[in-house]
Amino acid sequence: MSTATAAIEGDGIESGRSQPQINVGVLGATGTVGQRFITLLSNHPWFVLHRLGASPRSAGKKYREAVNWKQANAIPSSVREMMVYECKPEHFSECAIVFSGLDADAAGDIETAFRAADLCVFSNAKNYRRDPNVPLIVPFVNPSHLSIIPQQQSLLSPPLSKGFIVTNANCSTTGIVIPLAALERAFGPLELVLVTTMQAISGAGYPGISSLDILDNVVPHISGEEEKIEWETLKILGGVSESDTGVKSFDMHARHPLRVSASCNRVPVIDGHTECLSVRFARRPPPSPQQVREALAAFTPDAKALGCPSAPRHTITVHEEPDRPQPRLDRSYQDGAGVNVGRVRQCPVLDIKFVVLSNNVSIGAATSSIINAELAVLKGVVPT
Amino acid sequence: MSTATAAIEGDGIESGRSQPQINVGVLGATGTVGQRFITLLSNHPWFVLHRLGASPRSAGKKYREAVNWKQANAIPSSVREMMVYECKPEHFSECAIVFSGLDADAAGDIETAFRAADLCVFSNAKNYRRDPNVPLIVPFVNPSHLSIIPQQQSLLSPPLSKGFIVTNANCSTTGIVIPLAALERAFGPLELVLVTTMQAISGAGYPGISSLDILDNVVPHISGEEEKIEWETLKILGGVSESDTGVKSFDMHARHPLRVSASCNRVPVIDGHTECLSVRFARRPPPSPQQVREALAAFTPDAKALGCPSAPRHTITVHEEPDRPQPRLDRSYQDGAGVNVGRVRQCPVLDIKFVVLSNNVSIGAATSSIINAELAVLKGVVPT
Amino acid sequence: MSTATAAIEGDGIESGRSQPQINVGVLGATGTVGQRFITLLSNHPWFVLHRLGASPRSAGKKYREAVNWKQANAIPSSVREMMVYECKPEHFSECAIVFSGLDADAAGDIETAFRAADLCVFSNAKNYRRDPNVPLIVPFVNPSHLSIIPQQQSLLSPPLSKGFIVTNANCSTTGIVIPLAALERAFGPLELVLVTTMQAISGAGYPGISSLDILDNVVPHISGEEEKIEWETLKILGGVSESDTGVKSFDMHARHPLRVSASCNRVPVIDGHTECLSVRFARRPPPSPQQVREALAAFTPDAKALGCPSAPRHTITVHEEPDRPQPRLDRSYQDGAGVNVGRVRQCPVLDIKFVVLSNNVSIGAATSSIINAELAVLKGVVPT
Amino acid sequence: MSTATAAIEGDGIESGRSQPQINVGVLGATGTVGQRFITLLSNHPWFVLHRLGASPRSAGKKYREAVNWKQANAIPSSVREMMVYECKPEHFSECAIVFSGLDADAAGDIETAFRAADLCVFSNAKNYRRDPNVPLIVPFVNPSHLSIIPQQQSLLSPPLSKGFIVTNANCSTTGIVIPLAALERAFGPLELVLVTTMQAISGAGYPGISSLDILDNVVPHISGEEEKIEWETLKILGGVSESDTGVKSFDMHARHPLRVSASCNRVPVIDGHTECLSVRFARRPPPSPQQVREALAAFTPDAKALGCPSAPRHTITVHEEPDRPQPRLDRSYQDGAGVNVGRVRQCPVLDIKFVVLSNNVSIGAATSSIINAELAVLKGVVPT
Repeated sequence: MSTATAAIEGDGIESGRSQPQINVGVLGATGTVGQRFITLLSNHPWFVLHRLGASPRSAGKKYREAVNWKQANAIPSSVREMMVYECKPEHFSECAIVFSGLDADAAGDIETAFRAADLCVFSNAKNYRRDPNVPLIVPFVNPSHLSIIPQQQSLLSPPLSKGFIVTNANCSTTGIVIPLAALERAFGPLELVLVTTMQAISGAGYPGISSLDILDNVVPHISGEEEKIEWETLKILGGVSESDTGVKSFDMHARHPLRVSASCNRVPVIDGHTECLSVRFARRPPPSPQQVREALAAFTPDAKALGCPSAPRHTITVHEEPDRPQPRLDRSYQDGAGVNVGRVRQCPVLDIKFVVLSNNVSIGAATSSIINAELAVLKGVVPT
Repeated sequence: MSTATAAIEGDGIESGRSQPQINVGVLGATGTVGQRFITLLSNHPWFVLHRLGASPRSAGKKYREAVNWKQANAIPSSVREMMVYECKPEHFSECAIVFSGLDADAAGDIETAFRAADLCVFSNAKNYRRDPNVPLIVPFVNPSHLSIIPQQQSLLSPPLSKGFIVTNANCSTTGIVIPLAALERAFGPLELVLVTTMQAISGAGYPGISSLDILDNVVPHISGEEEKIEWETLKILGGVSESDTGVKSFDMHARHPLRVSASCNRVPVIDGHTECLSVRFARRPPPSPQQVREALAAFTPDAKALGCPSAPRHTITVHEEPDRPQPRLDRSYQDGAGVNVGRVRQCPVLDIKFVVLSNNVSIGAATSSIINAELAVLKGVVPT
Repeated sequence: MSTATAAIEGDGIESGRSQPQINVGVLGATGTVGQRFITLLSNHPWFVLHRLGASPRSAGKKYREAVNWKQANAIPSSVREMMVYECKPEHFSECAIVFSGLDADAAGDIETAFRAADLCVFSNAKNYRRDPNVPLIVPFVNPSHLSIIPQQQSLLSPPLSKGFIVTNANCSTTGIVIPLAALERAFGPLELVLVTTMQAISGAGYPGISSLDILDNVVPHISGEEEKIEWETLKILGGVSESDTGVKSFDMHARHPLRVSASCNRVPVIDGHTECLSVRFARRPPPSPQQVREALAAFTPDAKALGCPSAPRHTITVHEEPDRPQPRLDRSYQDGAGVNVGRVRQCPVLDIKFVVLSNNVSIGAATSSIINAELAVLKGVVPT
Repeated sequence: MSTATAAIEGDGIESGRSQPQINVGVLGATGTVGQRFITLLSNHPWFVLHRLGASPRSAGKKYREAVNWKQANAIPSSVREMMVYECKPEHFSECAIVFSGLDADAAGDIETAFRAADLCVFSNAKNYRRDPNVPLIVPFVNPSHLSIIPQQQSLLSPPLSKGFIVTNANCSTTGIVIPLAALERAFGPLELVLVTTMQAISGAGYPGISSLDILDNVVPHISGEEEKIEWETLKILGGVSESDTGVKSFDMHARHPLRVSASCNRVPVIDGHTECLSVRFARRPPPSPQQVREALAAFTPDAKALGCPSAPRHTITVHEEPDRPQPRLDRSYQDGAGVNVGRVRQCPVLDIKFVVLSNNVSIGAATSSIINAELAVLKGVVPT
């Protein structure tokens, strides 16, 4: 952190003082998620985009030459002429934080190497999500899982003092765990969650889905997606338990077994995942739809309380209109950093059903990583 | 029936003989469902399109002048020059069967008047579906419900000898009750059904959904649709019970209570409703996914056995590919008269989950009415 | 104008001083164009949204209750609770400017009445565009046509001192006349213009185009649109001539006859009209593609020079990439207030061909009206 | 030709007799055009699908395993289990005709090798279209260009006795040259043609266009397409001239110089290219719109006269409705083998303007190749 007026005290940043200025890098900078990282970071109050990484064939080019820019806004002028580097740790040594928007086939080795070089990696890739020492953090839900990081560092050989990997969740998982966490906080543990998704094409990256596959069509399958939702939800909503010997582990919601069933579909929508959920609470009688609405609207995450600059004002927006949320109308609200819920009503099979809309390229991807990094700064996990 | 070589004997049509020729009419002939009726009936082996009914402002015009034809095939040449009449029973007195593709706001009064004039009405409208003496028939599922017709006739004042109303189900209900019926026949009663639909725009008629509401969008609400699925499924899958005094009534699946929960969405697909289902069987242990696949593929309805000419060769097509069925690729198979099922797998919350695709304008609407009428002819319910 | 710190001197607003605060009203406030007016005006530095007008069935309701809001951003909080009034002049007497987003079938009588009540009307409707005393102004092109206003006022009975009607052009006309004006300014008169449009569905209002008509489709016809382009282009690009008796009239480009041919198509795009043009210049030899590119990029309208707050920084953005502009990627640039041109190249039939993209709901509609009003304020045409 | 009842006499097939049975092969059988070839050939009265060729990684598999089938109808049952071979001439030695649906990057070498092996190749690829000895044939337009084949054969080293290559045109060229040929036949030579296309995504093959590039979008550029239209139109509409030494060459419409200008756009339509044309005739005064309509509707190609089984009954369907043709409603008429024209009207810049719709995967691709082959059989060009 390179500011004479930095405001860090103790383990966090005190608001009201001047803003820290922290160098960050982006891996996979030319891809779909990378473009979103760059859009968001170009205006960030703390993070200064310092280094861009991409594949060897992009390295050495200016960003505007290397990228096939597909965002509705233009390339930020501060980034257009930046040089693109290969994704090697030595090029990112001045970055206190490295965001990874890499594809899964590249992310594993590269993120491993970056961590080994004692860099702090916040990854959107799936590769490390199931690692027992890597936290899978949805920013408004389980920031406490950051507590596993010292164990992650100590178990490496050689042990690390600074570097680590933090992942965020799959885009379709993120959308649902935020309201599910709100429900558990208000009404106690859930027992059953059944979710059917209608996911946007941008979730598959670029070029991703062929237009011939999705125009006038629904594809009722997204490879590996249902397993991700069913597994990640348990890791995120579960706690961290500690053995007698002090070893920490994610308990996968073990104290109150939770079963999740997902059916995933791709629909001809550009951005915004719509998900229909039915849930059953452990508590009998279950809360009423009106109680659920109120609890969702009132949900205030720790992240926000702590002052993450990228956290939305309303984490969950509850819609009263019978036909909302809709991706085209609601995905851009709060720059896509919140989650929309609507149609909260009784379910004749489980207890309550409702619809969730989340912006898969914002809170479902880059925005989550960024808020996670903000959180880590505020909690003093990132050395600054 | 105007053929010297008619082949009706006893209560049915004997196959192998010459085909009956039966005059039929279509109400709401210029609407979306009406256009589909006309397309299907113009090539029908038994039914002869004899009279077209539409609103007063269309009456007196030639069909090609009155209609805003929206089908991918041209107006059948035999129909182009036919005169359109007002929907009054006197114009349809020569029709042994009248198909109704009327909108709900017109259907009630007109269908009542047609029945009162002793005409046999097969309606796609919702108005009479909940009538306790009107059968709600999905052709491959519950043809036995036609047995309520004598009671329907006798309770009217004055009682009727020939006329009646038979309805078919809502398009999204039809798609799911066919595989559900197949499952109940093979494995005994279901206890729970949870369905999320992704419905085509053609289900809303023309002009129906504004393009501004559905392009790049999902609308997570279709007015009244969830209630229809939840209620109609019980009537269709249930039986007909008889009181001590001989009064028949639909039992709404009462012997084995069934709970159905539906979440309905509109997606940017032209034709074909995709529905994700999870079901729980009463029987423990439940059947395996493979057993379910085999039972669905083997399902042979009575209708087909009896020789309805519009019944498809395969009532349920079970797809093995992981990403099928899809509306654009599978909706036209067998002219849309069958139902497609895919992705049969275990559900972590209920027992089994799978995807259904049905063509909402074919088996979900006009084709169902036509097969119902064929069935009624074969069973001798329609006087010919 | 209700500000003690108003900065109007002489016939304009002097920049650098405090901003004028001018009450404005919107007619047709609940419609598609009306919603866009409200979005733009809610943040306007000069104009204060003071009165909303809509149909009698909306009158008396709060705006949020009356409107079926279809914008991607939320209803501005300052407008949500505003009362909607009938479109009667007495309700708008405190408005120095009235914007009309009315449909053509209502606009004629209402705008006439508003003008008769001495109100200044800036209309997006087509009704008055062909009036020989009403200027048809595209803001970066022909602000000088405002000079017809005194004649418009004097010819009414009784003559008016303040009120008038100014119209803006059809959305597809606006997109092309801006680059055409730039070309005429740089290279002298055009002789031939051939344009084929691919127009967005939002151009038809709401509900507008049925989704069944446009999904997976092109409709090669928009009623009256080709005539509008062919006629309006002449009025806008033409001058104002004055007879010996001092009567002014629009000369329809008479000094250099110009022939325009338009072919209009509707395509499945939400916002943004794409138009392919070929043009022939009077001057021989014609300019090269590179000269055309430079002239377009350098075009600086009077409006901007005068300091209209809603004018974009770049009136015409010239794209070098071979596949731009594209509606989805370029329509939001500068909030849609500029025009995009790309693919400037030689035409084997005429001289030069190129592609224009303009945002039909911004510069093609509400934004044009607003800039026209800003211009009129700056020129002292609107009494403030 | 393997039939005892073959009906070939002289240089053609005499209708009324039994049908010839001719073995054919398809190269690129798993691709988009290959799938269309297979669909059409599986029901062909003369051609028997005998051999399928694809890339080495498909070779050795059953067709159903090798293909990612994307057609709305199922894989023909006769083809599902056929073996796929590498595209080597030795595997196709029993095929009298070989259709090529290969991509341009593979087509050049493979087609050259097949011709060298004395096979008759009808190719949809672009590679040989500009060859001065290869006819570029649009079936209803210039079958006389087959007369170049002996020269093509004689100039090879060693000269061939049977083998040759015939190409068909680019999909967007085909759609327009058919009506243009009809106009030239009726009214004499054209001088100017200006065309703007709105092309379907299927024209780019599979996976082709990313959905992120085309949903809610228009891409105003298709690489190489404008050049193809501008050049191919001249070759097709031109004649074959012969030098004093007997050398034949395509005259590129030289006797009446024709200038063609094309602007090509990709739109979110699955199948069917819509093209807006303006034309100028040499003859003064030009024909009226009504004369043009009549000439187009009356156009009867030689191909049809000769009895090609795949030729449509109406080569050009002229629509009178103001908003037709439309891709979704008109592309399937006559199985896509004809061309639709509508909106014939005067052009203020050239003489006449109109809209053409052609099915790019049928008459624009596989159907053209097949009709070309039928023609060649009828003319005795293919040794049978």
